[in-house]
Amino acid sequence: MVKKDWKEIVKESRARRDMTIPEKWRVDFSNEKSASIMHFATEGHPLVSERQKEITTLSAGALLQAIKDKKYTCVEVCEAFAVRACIAHQLTNCVSEFFIEEGLETARKLDEYYERTGQLWGPFHGLPVSVKDHFHLAGHLLNTGFTAWADFRNKPEDEDGIFKELRKAGCVFFMKTHMPTSGMVLETTSNLWGNVYNPYNRKVTSGGSSGGETIMISMYGTPMAIGTDGAGSIRCPAGFCGNYSLKPTSGRFDYTGQSNYAPNQVIVPGVPGPICRSLSDVKLMSKFLIDVEPWTNDPNAVAIPWRESVLPEKLTIGLLKWDGVAMPHPPIQRALREVRQKLEAAGHEVYEFEMPFDCEEAMKVTMNIYFQSGFAEGKKLLAETGEPLMPALEQLFRFYNIDRELTGSESFKLAAQRNKYRKQFLTAWKDTATKTKSGRPIDALMCPISPGAAFAHDLFPWWGYTSLFNMLDYPGITLPIKGCFSDKTKDPKDTNYTPVGPWDKYTYDQYDPDLFHGTPISLQFVGKRFFEEDLLQISQVLDKVVNNVDN
Amino acid sequence: MVKKDWKEIVKESRARRDMTIPEKWRVDFSNEKSASIMHFATEGHPLVSERQKEITTLSAGALLQAIKDKKYTCVEVCEAFAVRACIAHQLTNCVSEFFIEEGLETARKLDEYYERTGQLWGPFHGLPVSVKDHFHLAGHLLNTGFTAWADFRNKPEDEDGIFKELRKAGCVFFMKTHMPTSGMVLETTSNLWGNVYNPYNRKVTSGGSSGGETIMISMYGTPMAIGTDGAGSIRCPAGFCGNYSLKPTSGRFDYTGQSNYAPNQVIVPGVPGPICRSLSDVKLMSKFLIDVEPWTNDPNAVAIPWRESVLPEKLTIGLLKWDGVAMPHPPIQRALREVRQKLEAAGHEVYEFEMPFDCEEAMKVTMNIYFQSGFAEGKKLLAETGEPLMPALEQLFRFYNIDRELTGSESFKLAAQRNKYRKQFLTAWKDTATKTKSGRPIDALMCPISPGAAFAHDLFPWWGYTSLFNMLDYPGITLPIKGCFSDKTKDPKDTNYTPVGPWDKYTYDQYDPDLFHGTPISLQFVGKRFFEEDLLQISQVLDKVVNNVDN
Repeated sequence: MVKKDWKEIVKESRARRDMTIPEKWRVDFSNEKSASIMHFATEGHPLVSERQKEITTLSAGALLQAIKDKKYTCVEVCEAFAVRACIAHQLTNCVSEFFIEEGLETARKLDEYYERTGQLWGPFHGLPVSVKDHFHLAGHLLNTGFTAWADFRNKPEDEDGIFKELRKAGCVFFMKTHMPTSGMVLETTSNLWGNVYNPYNRKVTSGGSSGGETIMISMYGTPMAIGTDGAGSIRCPAGFCGNYSLKPTSGRFDYTGQSNYAPNQVIVPGVPGPICRSLSDVKLMSKFLIDVEPWTNDPNAVAIPWRESVLPEKLTIGLLKWDGVAMPHPPIQRALREVRQKLEAAGHEVYEFEMPFDCEEAMKVTMNIYFQSGFAEGKKLLAETGEPLMPALEQLFRFYNIDRELTGSESFKLAAQRNKYRKQFLTAWKDTATKTKSGRPIDALMCPISPGAAFAHDLFPWWGYTSLFNMLDYPGITLPIKGCFSDKTKDPKDTNYTPVGPWDKYTYDQYDPDLFHGTPISLQFVGKRFFEEDLLQISQVLDKVVNNVDN
Repeated sequence: MVKKDWKEIVKESRARRDMTIPEKWRVDFSNEKSASIMHFATEGHPLVSERQKEITTLSAGALLQAIKDKKYTCVEVCEAFAVRACIAHQLTNCVSEFFIEEGLETARKLDEYYERTGQLWGPFHGLPVSVKDHFHLAGHLLNTGFTAWADFRNKPEDEDGIFKELRKAGCVFFMKTHMPTSGMVLETTSNLWGNVYNPYNRKVTSGGSSGGETIMISMYGTPMAIGTDGAGSIRCPAGFCGNYSLKPTSGRFDYTGQSNYAPNQVIVPGVPGPICRSLSDVKLMSKFLIDVEPWTNDPNAVAIPWRESVLPEKLTIGLLKWDGVAMPHPPIQRALREVRQKLEAAGHEVYEFEMPFDCEEAMKVTMNIYFQSGFAEGKKLLAETGEPLMPALEQLFRFYNIDRELTGSESFKLAAQRNKYRKQFLTAWKDTATKTKSGRPIDALMCPISPGAAFAHDLFPWWGYTSLFNMLDYPGITLPIKGCFSDKTKDPKDTNYTPVGPWDKYTYDQYDPDLFHGTPISLQFVGKRFFEEDLLQISQVLDKVVNNVDN
């Protein structure tokens, strides 16, 4: 049955991938032993010129303006990010394929066009965007982490949705990042490509499945990234690496032009969304993705144009300190406390919110929804090359008894349970109006992204703080708390804490102040369904209060 | 296993139901042999006073104005519709329970409130609305056609969504209509309540599953009705009885506060919508259902407020003459021809549209989506009392091999097939812009509702013209073609026609000019997803051109 041994495929794939790094930019970092390699991003690297540093540290918005002002050509912009991306990859292992010559060729055409016509090609003229594995890009790899698909490449006609629009808008593509086997792991790891490392702290994961996107944003390998999120795959990596991101309500952005190892299940659908270095870039991309009228291309998109938001002068923010299942680690607790204080000091109201249902039960339902097929499609792919299941998936399947195809009746019941949770949450949110000082329902809900600042490699952590809002289908952003890192001095282990249950115990045991030291802390803010504009506007207020950043 | 014999339950239920008809309004119509009993609606009945005729023939909008102007009290309005409804039911068998005293009590309170405060209770002060079986109404029956649920009644806390809002808005409820066993039959029939008859032609069905709603609208038993539609259950009955209706895009209206024999499947979801005697009433109710902000109550509703529509001066209407599977019967073909002529004469463009995929295959996919559980929940309920499967369901299950629970993988594949069809249809619609004279994509698509004006009782007809737009999730309205009826003289059987396949042959064989004679003809107009306002506005233009009705 085995077509080709998976270990052979791995060896060939990685060798081929390594060859796509231009020779002049190949660096041997094997002697680099420090946990954080962020100095290669912030301080730079001999391969990166001062001008390239200048280009790559601009926001996407500022970069587009600079290209328009002819301060930089698209070619030099592409080259600047490409060298940065090659360094980032060689330190973290997040790319499956570089195609820098193709990117430069696009950039050259854009420069020529601008020179010749005096017109920009489109609103994103010359903007590099990193491309996650499972988006279709003409001629390039799509393998969703499976060795069986190591050689699968998309055809031009497969391109659709976001990346088709981005190409039309003048974006430049020069790399694909890889994703964990099946996408259903919250770190970026596969037998095919191996582990991906958090650039702030390589002892922990970058998060996944959009790990490549967040690393490239953190390390200036791209000015703009698009991730996808079905259980936390935008928010975990963005949060673990200190970046801004938006997971929208399903249907708000176009989700054609991508595919995974199995057909997408629709009870808790995945969504695409931007990962950026600033909220203004998140907003820039979000507005673009709505202004292209996704409902004219994606048959499941919702026809809601961009709506400018009008906020009350002072916000009422809900605070979910924990979900009753997995107590966040001390650094996250500290961040929640500090942000609360800052919000209150700025005159905003913070209202302590409690989940209206048992989040452990809700997670069981959610996991069964994800794996209605008992991972049948994935098992088939694994069997094709004989590759073993990833440890994190193996743990997940064991824990949630994922071992068989569910029946139609079971699927119906799961959807009904989802609806019940959704209704309870909507009601609880609405009912906060009777308890807040403002007399309004909370404007957004602040909560952890994950119990930890990140987690150790090859481990199945508690997904509950992100997958909850996929199951409920609420939009969420990640807000990095600038200057706030997991700190072994400030955040000792609470030796007096008594876990309330097995998940809490397991989570508690994972906290090791030394392991996490230096990992950035981010928080999640959840907004009302389909009101992404409000959530972004609220986040801008928060970014000012918390980070003193003007957007 | 059998708790109680189903025949006993039927006898008891019907006897109990008959007792809910006020004694003074019980009429023995058993000697009434004419196929059409519409003269009891149009000419009236000795039980109905002239003033009651006047009240009950008003549109909902006009009635609300008259109540506001104190021309009628809510009590006399309720009484007028109630007597009409009792007559309608006794001629067609569509009600499972009257509770007229409760309705009058509500009406009395409304009158007192208005008298005392000078204020109306709400925007629908005193408006009767008929209630379909599976909507939750405090204290009343919900049995979805199953004898096993013959005694099930909802509690006050079950009321939610549309009927909760309607109650708050001042509506008056005094009856529940019944629905076919499971709802998955396009006529209104069950072992529990028996067949329901088309008031225009009792030899054919009224359509279902919202058969009671359409009959009450046709026979002036209610000024306003809300149906539900997962495969055609609003559009078939509305069309078969010559009424206006709207099946919206899913998520546009609140769909809480209802339940069926099995949890709702979500791949092709059902939706609620109004059935009315005029388009202006359809619009009145649609705007209300959106103005209440369903997204603040139904966690799956979409946050799109009412958007006023701006139309081009002349419309471009697509025409789907047939779907390639089941050729519409001669009266429907004639209606399509005549409407086309009228539209063109009025300067609108008619563009012949063809479906971009095989509709027979699409129907197989859709049926498998509906019955992912192999009807397991229904079989269990049938077994509880030993009642047999309805003939139409039995035919459906045989034809589509519905006999087992599907697996999770199969459900995933079905959703993917749905998405493929949706994408193909969206693309085909968009691409009409390259072929129309206007250079715009079609504004709406005109097509049959069903191959026939209706169909004979206990028969499984071709659902394809309605369920197609559930699978695709496009909004559709029904437009009665005023004065256009199936006519044995004008619409002889086409003896030269050679059916293209088994479904076409089966449909062809069903056409009997004598059987259908006198059944009203209606057509379906399909609009763009989430643009219900545009579709209603377009329909008003069509209603003027086709029926000379100003809305």
